[in-house]
Amino acid sequence: MINCNTVIIGAGPVGMFQIFELGLLGLDAHVIDSVPHAGGQCTELYPDKPIYDIPAVPVCSGRELIERLQQQIRPFAPQFHLGNTVTSLERMANGRFRLHTSAGLAFDAGVVIIAGGLGAFAPRALDLPEAASLAGRTLHYKVSQPALFDDQDIVIAGGGDAALDWALALVDRVRSLVLVHRSSSFRAAPASVARMQALCDEGRMQLCEGDIAGLETADEALAQVRVRTRSGMVQRIEASHLLVFWGLHPALGPIAEWGLALERQQLVVDPSTFQTSTPGVFAVGDINTYPGKKKLILSGFHEAALCAFAAHAHLHPGDKVNLQYTTTSPALQRRLGVRGDAVAQPPPRVAAGAA
Amino acid sequence: MINCNTVIIGAGPVGMFQIFELGLLGLDAHVIDSVPHAGGQCTELYPDKPIYDIPAVPVCSGRELIERLQQQIRPFAPQFHLGNTVTSLERMANGRFRLHTSAGLAFDAGVVIIAGGLGAFAPRALDLPEAASLAGRTLHYKVSQPALFDDQDIVIAGGGDAALDWALALVDRVRSLVLVHRSSSFRAAPASVARMQALCDEGRMQLCEGDIAGLETADEALAQVRVRTRSGMVQRIEASHLLVFWGLHPALGPIAEWGLALERQQLVVDPSTFQTSTPGVFAVGDINTYPGKKKLILSGFHEAALCAFAAHAHLHPGDKVNLQYTTTSPALQRRLGVRGDAVAQPPPRVAAGAA
Repeated sequence: MINCNTVIIGAGPVGMFQIFELGLLGLDAHVIDSVPHAGGQCTELYPDKPIYDIPAVPVCSGRELIERLQQQIRPFAPQFHLGNTVTSLERMANGRFRLHTSAGLAFDAGVVIIAGGLGAFAPRALDLPEAASLAGRTLHYKVSQPALFDDQDIVIAGGGDAALDWALALVDRVRSLVLVHRSSSFRAAPASVARMQALCDEGRMQLCEGDIAGLETADEALAQVRVRTRSGMVQRIEASHLLVFWGLHPALGPIAEWGLALERQQLVVDPSTFQTSTPGVFAVGDINTYPGKKKLILSGFHEAALCAFAAHAHLHPGDKVNLQYTTTSPALQRRLGVRGDAVAQPPPRVAAGAA
Repeated sequence: MINCNTVIIGAGPVGMFQIFELGLLGLDAHVIDSVPHAGGQCTELYPDKPIYDIPAVPVCSGRELIERLQQQIRPFAPQFHLGNTVTSLERMANGRFRLHTSAGLAFDAGVVIIAGGLGAFAPRALDLPEAASLAGRTLHYKVSQPALFDDQDIVIAGGGDAALDWALALVDRVRSLVLVHRSSSFRAAPASVARMQALCDEGRMQLCEGDIAGLETADEALAQVRVRTRSGMVQRIEASHLLVFWGLHPALGPIAEWGLALERQQLVVDPSTFQTSTPGVFAVGDINTYPGKKKLILSGFHEAALCAFAAHAHLHPGDKVNLQYTTTSPALQRRLGVRGDAVAQPPPRVAAGAA
């Protein structure tokens, strides 16, 4: 059992900056994330793409942003527990919180700050009663072993890059391939769409415009995919495998089960404290909602600053914490480990006129 | 008359970042500031002092922060009108705003965003009826010409660094020097306090504990300073010059006269839009107040982002503006002037699975 002031769930940029803001107020933090490295979406989704709207950082990649934050939080020696999903959060009789993770860790924390971003990304699933029993065997939402489809009749569903890319990658190894998409417009690279259309013209694959209406099985495996075309007719396609690429959607996962007030899959917070409906549980970044909320990294940073003060007030109800500035406060500079520099180079006197 | 979308009052870091956020939404900005250079307090008060709490910028000086922001707003070619104080703001019958400045400029703007920081800094003045007529001649709140005090009897009032620094700097050139301070504790560098006490011990200056109770004049010049000591006795000190260093205090100035709701000298705003009590007039940064407000540069940056959306909605009531990301939006990248780069290096496919 790890006993601590604060647990931060989520090691994305906002969770990382939360460590900094807590550290300035003298609070340590344990940080838990389900993926094996810090950085959240910045590292997972766009490590090499430029970001232009971090104030005073005219351009940086997702990876660089995380490196800069790693450097900034170093003085506070944060403790990361990566590759751990928080599976349960429970409020104890004494007002503290008990958390358990998928890897068997347990925490006893005074405050919990959820910086879980959009939640874990999960593929959008086929909503048919027969889907569940086939998933992972003859119904797939991702491709782990392309050889599985060698000389098979396959149906690929979707109209985005993942569907097109896999259609083009598998067409030469399968026996037959039908791409099922509900419209004739594709959200994929134009070159991929043109290549797919050329393959259809050559008869090497087929495009079927319509919705998947049902699955026929034989011996607990897929046998046919029923597609309702736009004219209302149902077409049956022989298939031993169905690959569905309808994109990813963020899923709150276990967080949705913790009894916290939700609004459209986001945690409702008070924008003066970023506290959720449960006192002592806070939420910052893309996972929260309040009037005017914009899902900007910048806003998450601001939320982390205000949340740190509220977390301190929750942990130490009597103490009054005045806002201090890193530029002038010896206490903050000691916590940052820069007090030596500050003494060696005394501040100019111009601001010191205040008597 | 300059006709424009938005006028920003205040060219500090938050006013500068406001330009960036407006620019992303396709809105241009005219920026007015009373001092002759951009940067606000960062440039005026602590250009060389390190700031540690700007997210993803582990350390930078006030001057560096402003240089970084200058670089970031360059794509939007902002128009600065420095050395101009806004003297009047008036709402016209058509809902637009008319502004006039001290240097004779006039603006017709759809939206006004006040990023005036703590307002203009002014010295805290001696509140005595005889003070006004002496100020600038034998009563001083700043030192422009130290030679004025050569061989004079002077009184310095104050207990901070400015009072102590000037006492130590002038003691060798004056005929007599009395430091008047209301208590025996000083808010000044300990070394300065020790040096002052040593000079008192040597009889080269005197320290008088008490409050200034009145001034005696002769021929429209200062003759005596009356000090009420802590025992209640009034002491008269011969003096031809009185220097008062009671610190600076921010003054809203003309802003206080514009009919906007105020709370303790700050503009009350709605934290979902940062609009003041007057529709179309917004306030961001240290000058505003709302529940939970902390006077952090970081919070001002967040406020600028949300304010830009609200300003756009005020200017274009019908248009719906969706949140876009600089990382992925061609429209934002065109406005930033970086669209060329983005095309040359296509985004990785991992995020493109969404169909």
